[in-house]
Amino acid sequence: MMPLMNAPGTQNLNVELGERSYPIRIGPGQLAAAETLRPALEGRRVAVVTNTTVGPLYGEALRETLGQCEIAGEILWIELPDGEAHKTLATVESIITRLLEARLDRGSRIVALGGGVVGDIAGFAAAIYQRGIDFVQVPTTLLAQVDSSVGGKTGVNHPLGKNMIGAFHQPRAVLIDTDTLKTLPERELQAGLAEVIKYGLIRDAEFFAWLEAHIDELRALEPEALAWAIHRSCACKAEIVAADEREGGIRALLNLGHTFGHAIEAGMGYGEWLHGEAVGTGMAMAARMSERMGWLSTAERERAEALIQRAGLALDPPDSMSAERFRELMAIDKKVASGRLRLVLLRGIGQAELTDQFDVSALDATLHEGARVA
Amino acid sequence: MMPLMNAPGTQNLNVELGERSYPIRIGPGQLAAAETLRPALEGRRVAVVTNTTVGPLYGEALRETLGQCEIAGEILWIELPDGEAHKTLATVESIITRLLEARLDRGSRIVALGGGVVGDIAGFAAAIYQRGIDFVQVPTTLLAQVDSSVGGKTGVNHPLGKNMIGAFHQPRAVLIDTDTLKTLPERELQAGLAEVIKYGLIRDAEFFAWLEAHIDELRALEPEALAWAIHRSCACKAEIVAADEREGGIRALLNLGHTFGHAIEAGMGYGEWLHGEAVGTGMAMAARMSERMGWLSTAERERAEALIQRAGLALDPPDSMSAERFRELMAIDKKVASGRLRLVLLRGIGQAELTDQFDVSALDATLHEGARVA
Repeated sequence: MMPLMNAPGTQNLNVELGERSYPIRIGPGQLAAAETLRPALEGRRVAVVTNTTVGPLYGEALRETLGQCEIAGEILWIELPDGEAHKTLATVESIITRLLEARLDRGSRIVALGGGVVGDIAGFAAAIYQRGIDFVQVPTTLLAQVDSSVGGKTGVNHPLGKNMIGAFHQPRAVLIDTDTLKTLPERELQAGLAEVIKYGLIRDAEFFAWLEAHIDELRALEPEALAWAIHRSCACKAEIVAADEREGGIRALLNLGHTFGHAIEAGMGYGEWLHGEAVGTGMAMAARMSERMGWLSTAERERAEALIQRAGLALDPPDSMSAERFRELMAIDKKVASGRLRLVLLRGIGQAELTDQFDVSALDATLHEGARVA
Repeated sequence: MMPLMNAPGTQNLNVELGERSYPIRIGPGQLAAAETLRPALEGRRVAVVTNTTVGPLYGEALRETLGQCEIAGEILWIELPDGEAHKTLATVESIITRLLEARLDRGSRIVALGGGVVGDIAGFAAAIYQRGIDFVQVPTTLLAQVDSSVGGKTGVNHPLGKNMIGAFHQPRAVLIDTDTLKTLPERELQAGLAEVIKYGLIRDAEFFAWLEAHIDELRALEPEALAWAIHRSCACKAEIVAADEREGGIRALLNLGHTFGHAIEAGMGYGEWLHGEAVGTGMAMAARMSERMGWLSTAERERAEALIQRAGLALDPPDSMSAERFRELMAIDKKVASGRLRLVLLRGIGQAELTDQFDVSALDATLHEGARVA
């Protein structure tokens, strides 16, 4: 059998973090690639954390691959209910109870099979189980593949704020099978594209131009285009994370659109808007605010908005999100350093900047403009 | 005013962990030493986590010192109910809710004022609040001063096991005021002495001999003896932690007596036996098992047991702890690597070794001997 890692369209990447470095494998058919998983799992007890949507679709394929990894004992299979509503400390505690009941020790591994929510929950459970065990990410949504599977952010929501409870915990390996996108609802694909566009906007003008040329192929799930877009996104994120693992500096640029976006997600009730959808709109808001401050030309703002729109994403927040509601929700965001609001804004396509020296009237105008005619 | 850091009996120590290095200040009157706290807290929002026993005793003194540290805004004061029974994920979540309600951001600090339980809970809350904020330890029990305040272990219990949920999270500074031991119940002082003796047993024969000569002064709270014993204990632990921050190797030696001890704590119901009391008995059991294996001479085993006993600690587990119950509880201990029991045993006074190559009949005999005539 030909090793699948050499299949056409397959991309390899290494996230460089010293002793916490790890490989990412990207391409079609990766779910069957035991040679990627074996080094991380061989001789270990393994728990798979997935959900009731992804488990039935890809659980059997993963089980088969794990069967070739020489793991110790039976696989502990944990299927969570689907949805952001379950991204809570209570769910993490229920996973830990299962791990303890099955007597998984500190040398055991967790494999997260699913989207960003599954990855965040399972990664956080791994981070705090017996003060930290290793885990492997098998992300099955575009958003998780280009964003949450790289960088080691794990965590859950609190009623008072998204991702308010969590830890930095790097995976041992990430396995990205682009075939899994075939079963992804279109809305979720679009949400994932928001984060892909983000990398172009914050640091890679060339990639942004490539996306302008290939956005329709990506929406049509053209495999070569997908593998390249995911590779480039992961590479961008990996470079940023390697330079700033714990988000002291440039890593904050990854939050372009997120301060506005988190407010939309929280304001509408988690799960109503997908994270990526909210980020897409948040990026459009950041672009408009940047234009108002004279940081971004009108032409650049129009390019940003056009690509966001072509990805199928909304440029405007919902009518129910008043400026007042935005302000209330943004004040508690994690990006508020010592009580002062900091925003990621654009100096150009491919150039973002974190600042607390922004024009308050530009912020107000952006929050007040409400729904416009597109 | 004379700077208190130069007061007689004061000891300084630095835990060397690269960018996570931190100072420990030890001595009488340290609670009033604003110059130790100010660098860690200046300009920050601060939450103090304490409990209903320690808060009324030392809260006012800490408040006064914090008043000289130029912190931002009001102090958020969180007083937990006292006791190991509250060392749960639910308590951590309640702390996080308070932090969010008060809108403490990622630059905020937690100060833990209390014993090991308060430090473990508050440190873990700091570890997972918004993926980690810094904290300062002000330990007020001997056990916390010589053990849990050094090394960055934080966490809570699960119904199925002690400290099964947690994280490694280093404090920014540790302030040890030996005056706080004056209000400590004698039983808790004795429990703390177990961990002090442990350092002598595992790696410092000279310190062990010093303890044999000064154990009565320590029990009488003689200040110079206390400061030295705490300094030597923290230094031993700091050296080990610096060499092995995440417990891959020699750090495991700190668990001398803990596998037996955790079983006693869990078997009796958490809180019935103090942690240090259980460790004291666990060390005596480890010494006897080591003697049975021919690792420790009878004379050395007798010296170990004599010092444990002079510290006011029991040499034998309670009658209700059958060998069967021990085995059941030890199988789920964190020190079980890939399904195999590993124990810390003694090769001599000042020389410990982690091994899974032990004599099972020596273990069985030790678990079966039950209560003996001392």
